[in-house]
Amino acid sequence: MADGFSPGGACPIPLSDYPRVSLAHGGGGRLMQQLIRRMLAPAFAGSVAEAQHDGARLPPLIGTPVMTTDSYVIRPRFFPGGDIGSLAVQGTVNDLAMCGAQPLYLTLGLILEEGLPMDELWRIVQSIHGAATAAGVQIVSGDTKVVEQGQADGIYINTAGMGAVPEGLRVHPDRVAPGDRILVSGDIGRHGIAVLSQREQLGFETTLASDCAALHTLVQALLTAAPDTHCLRDCTRGGLGAALIEIGEAAAMELHVEEGGVPVSPPVSAACELLGLEPLFVACEGRLVAFVPEVQAEAALAALRAHPLGEGATAIGHVAPPTAHGARVVMHSPYGTSRLLDLPSGEQLPRIC
Amino acid sequence: MADGFSPGGACPIPLSDYPRVSLAHGGGGRLMQQLIRRMLAPAFAGSVAEAQHDGARLPPLIGTPVMTTDSYVIRPRFFPGGDIGSLAVQGTVNDLAMCGAQPLYLTLGLILEEGLPMDELWRIVQSIHGAATAAGVQIVSGDTKVVEQGQADGIYINTAGMGAVPEGLRVHPDRVAPGDRILVSGDIGRHGIAVLSQREQLGFETTLASDCAALHTLVQALLTAAPDTHCLRDCTRGGLGAALIEIGEAAAMELHVEEGGVPVSPPVSAACELLGLEPLFVACEGRLVAFVPEVQAEAALAALRAHPLGEGATAIGHVAPPTAHGARVVMHSPYGTSRLLDLPSGEQLPRIC
Repeated sequence: MADGFSPGGACPIPLSDYPRVSLAHGGGGRLMQQLIRRMLAPAFAGSVAEAQHDGARLPPLIGTPVMTTDSYVIRPRFFPGGDIGSLAVQGTVNDLAMCGAQPLYLTLGLILEEGLPMDELWRIVQSIHGAATAAGVQIVSGDTKVVEQGQADGIYINTAGMGAVPEGLRVHPDRVAPGDRILVSGDIGRHGIAVLSQREQLGFETTLASDCAALHTLVQALLTAAPDTHCLRDCTRGGLGAALIEIGEAAAMELHVEEGGVPVSPPVSAACELLGLEPLFVACEGRLVAFVPEVQAEAALAALRAHPLGEGATAIGHVAPPTAHGARVVMHSPYGTSRLLDLPSGEQLPRIC
Repeated sequence: MADGFSPGGACPIPLSDYPRVSLAHGGGGRLMQQLIRRMLAPAFAGSVAEAQHDGARLPPLIGTPVMTTDSYVIRPRFFPGGDIGSLAVQGTVNDLAMCGAQPLYLTLGLILEEGLPMDELWRIVQSIHGAATAAGVQIVSGDTKVVEQGQADGIYINTAGMGAVPEGLRVHPDRVAPGDRILVSGDIGRHGIAVLSQREQLGFETTLASDCAALHTLVQALLTAAPDTHCLRDCTRGGLGAALIEIGEAAAMELHVEEGGVPVSPPVSAACELLGLEPLFVACEGRLVAFVPEVQAEAALAALRAHPLGEGATAIGHVAPPTAHGARVVMHSPYGTSRLLDLPSGEQLPRIC
């Protein structure tokens, strides 16, 4: 049924006839069929999914099934280092990886705005294809809706992910224990600042690229070197700070973090100062925080640093038993003072993912 | 972590403080945490999913895993017979059921518009809870985004579904064979007309309710009576007409349908006449079409009619081998004439699901 797919090729929908997405492209009629058959189905063909059906039959899963979902509403949809398509694949792949799962399958829900340039949709579809191929996941089921002009800001994407955790492995906040070392895989906040600078035309002299990346191979390397890793979390919305607070609360532990040890690149640091942002709470899309028993911490750090996505990995703190104050995150400054980390209550950076 | 959930209870977010959803409710900070902990997590607690983690670990699946996704952008979000929340559960449950799968798990992606009344969100969450409980599926993973006022028309919802097909069962368009009887489970078009009349304030004298419903128990009854059922499809976007055309093309068969035999209720018929709509292409959300070998067709029809959701089931046609014209759907009128059914090329009814 589906024509061939050539990444980098011309848009398979004739742009002279359909320069923009119209409501009829989501209406269940001939135009929707054309969009699916010419653009979407070929891009995601060759998968285990059976075409022309409401759902995809999958091969038996080996290991513990894991399921996750994320919607992506990032603005702008193209940014230095990625776009909403690659991000929608990598973000959900990362959620699976943080459970210790091998990412296997994604579903793809597109909500398109009437008037979205057809060639932008084509670029995004190619980007989804490329990111999924690179991450070794298959897009097994999809859905396309079109809403009226003025809504959906061009495109929103939902991906749900399915993966499998090898037998015996359990990576979870409730495993975090006193003595665990807290490792971060690289400098933080690049994604948030890259998106913000693009959006607000801040005109920074250097173009900072987002850190967005699929982290499953980094996680594999880490788990090979430190198989007793207790917990993993990607530092997305809310940044490293929110990840630390959430894990501390879920584990009911007190976390101690050396603030001077948290890696922040000079451009991110400068931009945060200019904008009054706290780097700890600026989103990353290619950084993780790991909680590893002390005995395996050195091996874990070496494994992270040996991987291209973890070159800047650093130990930033450790876990202590909870005090009478309950779960909390204590930040220690280089000057010997300390403060408690608290979630920001307002809106820091909307539409960052 | 999560407070208790009381369906029908007061909104767990204090409306005096937060009468409407704000951008900060999706910002990764304290307000988002509150929304998740007080409203969303309790509503979907008690599931197999582990809380406080990026993904949900699931029990081993027995049978062939099936995965599907759908986004829901219906306007208005409350309509006679349902709302966007119940629809988002039932629609995806139905996609799983049409594969012959037992629906098991859903993920839930919410895209909220800044300014959405908090109590409307609460009503929708309760509705999701109720529909999922009734259908016996668990919400295992969720995500919430908030976009600026003027976008997302209040709320968009994505659900992805996971189910399992019993061993030996395969319900698929490529099994459709000459001689198959074509059955429809009830009168068509109620959902589309109910939504449209609500939206356009058409002021029909009678309030027509949507047919939306979870069809998995109807499918179970059908498959028990007619275990060799070849193909199933719910008649959603594009209605019965699009379902017939798509299955005909996927199966490469010629379908013959007695137009006079297709059940259409008087109010739907009258509304379609008034609006210039073709009932065959008006969406249902609680009707299916089944392709059953002739030898099991009578048992299938009896099983459908014995179920509350299939009381109006009817045989409407049969499958013939393809001719030189290829796959097509031939509609036979009561007057002995015939015509070919073709997908509408324009937009019939946007935002119907």
